[in-house]
Amino acid sequence: MMKSIVSSKYLACLVGSIILNLLFIINIYVGGQWKLSWSSRAAIEAETVAAIYCSGHGRAYLDGLVVVGNKPVCDCNTCFTGPDCSQFIPHCTANADGGDPLFLEPFWMQHLASSALVVAGWHQMSYTYSGKSFFSEELAKVVRKVHASVGNAVTQNRFIIFGAGSTQVLSAAVFALSPENTSSPAKVVTSVPYYPVDKQQTQYFSSQKFKYEGDAYRWKNRSDCSITNMIEIVTSPNNPDGQLKKAIFHGPNVKTIYDHAYYWPHFTPIPAPSDEDVMVFTLSKLTGHAGTRLGWAVIKDETVFNRMMIHMQMNSMGVSKDAQLRAFKLLNVVLEEGTGIFDFAYQTLKSRWERLVQTVSLSNRFSLQENNPQYCTFYNKVRQLSPAYAWLKCEREEDKDCYAVLEAANIIGRQGNLFGVEDGYVRLSLVRTQDDFDILIERLHKLITEEDGDKPM
Amino acid sequence: MMKSIVSSKYLACLVGSIILNLLFIINIYVGGQWKLSWSSRAAIEAETVAAIYCSGHGRAYLDGLVVVGNKPVCDCNTCFTGPDCSQFIPHCTANADGGDPLFLEPFWMQHLASSALVVAGWHQMSYTYSGKSFFSEELAKVVRKVHASVGNAVTQNRFIIFGAGSTQVLSAAVFALSPENTSSPAKVVTSVPYYPVDKQQTQYFSSQKFKYEGDAYRWKNRSDCSITNMIEIVTSPNNPDGQLKKAIFHGPNVKTIYDHAYYWPHFTPIPAPSDEDVMVFTLSKLTGHAGTRLGWAVIKDETVFNRMMIHMQMNSMGVSKDAQLRAFKLLNVVLEEGTGIFDFAYQTLKSRWERLVQTVSLSNRFSLQENNPQYCTFYNKVRQLSPAYAWLKCEREEDKDCYAVLEAANIIGRQGNLFGVEDGYVRLSLVRTQDDFDILIERLHKLITEEDGDKPM
Repeated sequence: MMKSIVSSKYLACLVGSIILNLLFIINIYVGGQWKLSWSSRAAIEAETVAAIYCSGHGRAYLDGLVVVGNKPVCDCNTCFTGPDCSQFIPHCTANADGGDPLFLEPFWMQHLASSALVVAGWHQMSYTYSGKSFFSEELAKVVRKVHASVGNAVTQNRFIIFGAGSTQVLSAAVFALSPENTSSPAKVVTSVPYYPVDKQQTQYFSSQKFKYEGDAYRWKNRSDCSITNMIEIVTSPNNPDGQLKKAIFHGPNVKTIYDHAYYWPHFTPIPAPSDEDVMVFTLSKLTGHAGTRLGWAVIKDETVFNRMMIHMQMNSMGVSKDAQLRAFKLLNVVLEEGTGIFDFAYQTLKSRWERLVQTVSLSNRFSLQENNPQYCTFYNKVRQLSPAYAWLKCEREEDKDCYAVLEAANIIGRQGNLFGVEDGYVRLSLVRTQDDFDILIERLHKLITEEDGDKPM
Repeated sequence: MMKSIVSSKYLACLVGSIILNLLFIINIYVGGQWKLSWSSRAAIEAETVAAIYCSGHGRAYLDGLVVVGNKPVCDCNTCFTGPDCSQFIPHCTANADGGDPLFLEPFWMQHLASSALVVAGWHQMSYTYSGKSFFSEELAKVVRKVHASVGNAVTQNRFIIFGAGSTQVLSAAVFALSPENTSSPAKVVTSVPYYPVDKQQTQYFSSQKFKYEGDAYRWKNRSDCSITNMIEIVTSPNNPDGQLKKAIFHGPNVKTIYDHAYYWPHFTPIPAPSDEDVMVFTLSKLTGHAGTRLGWAVIKDETVFNRMMIHMQMNSMGVSKDAQLRAFKLLNVVLEEGTGIFDFAYQTLKSRWERLVQTVSLSNRFSLQENNPQYCTFYNKVRQLSPAYAWLKCEREEDKDCYAVLEAANIIGRQGNLFGVEDGYVRLSLVRTQDDFDILIERLHKLITEEDGDKPM
């Protein structure tokens, strides 16, 4: 009897132990981890760094600053400090300057498993893909699919080229559209308010091929001007004011570059797919990965495409394959998630815009850009802009230097004169971290409510 | 008795089962895999693709071409084809053209675990590192350590800037060293035989700031030339011939850019650390990752550094952070491995050079560049070049077009006239895959041994 109890205890233990064995086997094999060999060390390293606690006001990076020992430290948002970013810096300056698209960071934190990337040490060492091109055909395919799913650009029978962000792609387009042998350089124009980089970059690279000639309207109104070799850069939606812009010049001697960095449902209604000769896009304002430096152009004409290819070769011998791989991974997640990233981005920016409008409307001292509703084919409904930037105007006579007004209230924006208009305007970035936006609203609210009553205009 | 046997069997099974459980626990927990969560899917995906069998004549990439279904196909070496790259293409052309540094691929395949990289979807989305710079401080630290460990460049109290390969860095240096406001553009010169990209790139970007003025010797010999605003690019070791080159021009109106892409023990003895004003290096020729597009300059003067920073901003708003992260990872492995990568690279290229010398010496029809031994401080011994390229000369009167001679023998090199010399020369790349090199030697051997006997010169 005793033996029987013992052996049935043994049996019970054995059965339990075998079940546990099976569970381990299932866990290891069906969980797929049985395969992991060379990637484990890197995976543990990355997950360990990613798990460093930064209080929701920062994050630690694999290649982040190392202060003590070998462990990267938290990279804190503006106005937060301390080893875990938990200390708020009182009276700190609200940063509403650059267009760092960190508003999309939470989306990627919510899609950890699908957006992670594992790269072998021997991955894509060559200059080219299969000895052919500097540019990934597979990436181009995904880009076409994203445009098709959003309906913001026609890509069938178009060429696609990549560059280090839209910055390098825009420059490649200007070089490619300039006449090869001419005594008079092409006139590069942009209409106010314009994206400052277009002016700065064109001036920096100006040569016998092209020259920056300022505001497009200035040329339009000059009846004596012969419109020859004109290159117009049209930023649409516009940076700074988010408006859907159209070219001012047309005709056989005019080339147009559409900078569509912001032509995504995040920022604007999409009335129709764009079908321009040269359209420029960037990962930065689609997925938020500005640091990856990956932009592209969709091009109708093969000669223009070939000249842009030469530019990319002369300038940087193509574009980083690591950037192309990252973009490939991220855009595949964009596709997998259906309307996910667009919904997230639109809701975030819409709610920011509404908070801003509410704050600004407390007085007459400031005004914002117009925001007329338009039909959006992506959402099948009429909607407003949810712009990347507020184009703030100081309405009072004495507030001529709007930048200084905000600076005195501890807010850093971007000066209006950089965009070719007077200093009554300031651009405020709405695409940065939630912390940056919250502090901006707080400072603005304080500035507006601490006025001596609302002065009517 | 029966029961006792049964229960001792149970006991044995139970012990066995418990041991197995313990092994599983050890495997899972001590193996570290217990931590893996969000990276697992990507790790399995990457390891699955990396495990695709390509017969040792190719490899499959995560972002490689997809022909059937979703599985990337093998990317085969030149002269190999088929789904697993197992079919040799008879009579195929030996490719000895470009400088694709795939000779280093086996090193990374042997260092899989340490060189793998795992990237989170939210990794480094910002334009900058901690809101400060486009360039990673941690990467700069590793670069300094690598130079210190090799002893090929002085980096203390020097500035370091990154760019998309040495191509973009060289261009940034030319822009930065040109006078700002001048009526006469800086003269950019290189001495024959020179690296063709220096000429092509300078001509492409030429402006009122600088102009390409050809072979440096041509200016040296002109007694009437006033050496003002001269920029000399010195490629040392030289591309094509591997020689350690010195600047021809000196003086207060001369700026010199040292292109040290090949100044690593792989290719050349290292007589002393270089200590020039502007020194350019690239990951491509150090680790073999050409596709990553990551080069750097070590700069003495702060003004030059600042101007190069402006160039990088105007041109591409910095450089891909994905490229910087990859470089960070790979250079850390270079450091971890001590002399590992240098030994591997040197031995590979030394053996290739010896096989080439042996083949060429079978006749008098061709000759190679000089290869005088020199003291190498890295290996503490006298050694020869193990050059990246053979600078082959056709010695016969009737072989004026050396490129055509090789082409007829099914070998593609790079034409001498691209390097500023006559067509009696051809550059043959020795840094490509082992397959490419083997086929080159085979074709050369055939060409040389099928001659009508050895014609003395």
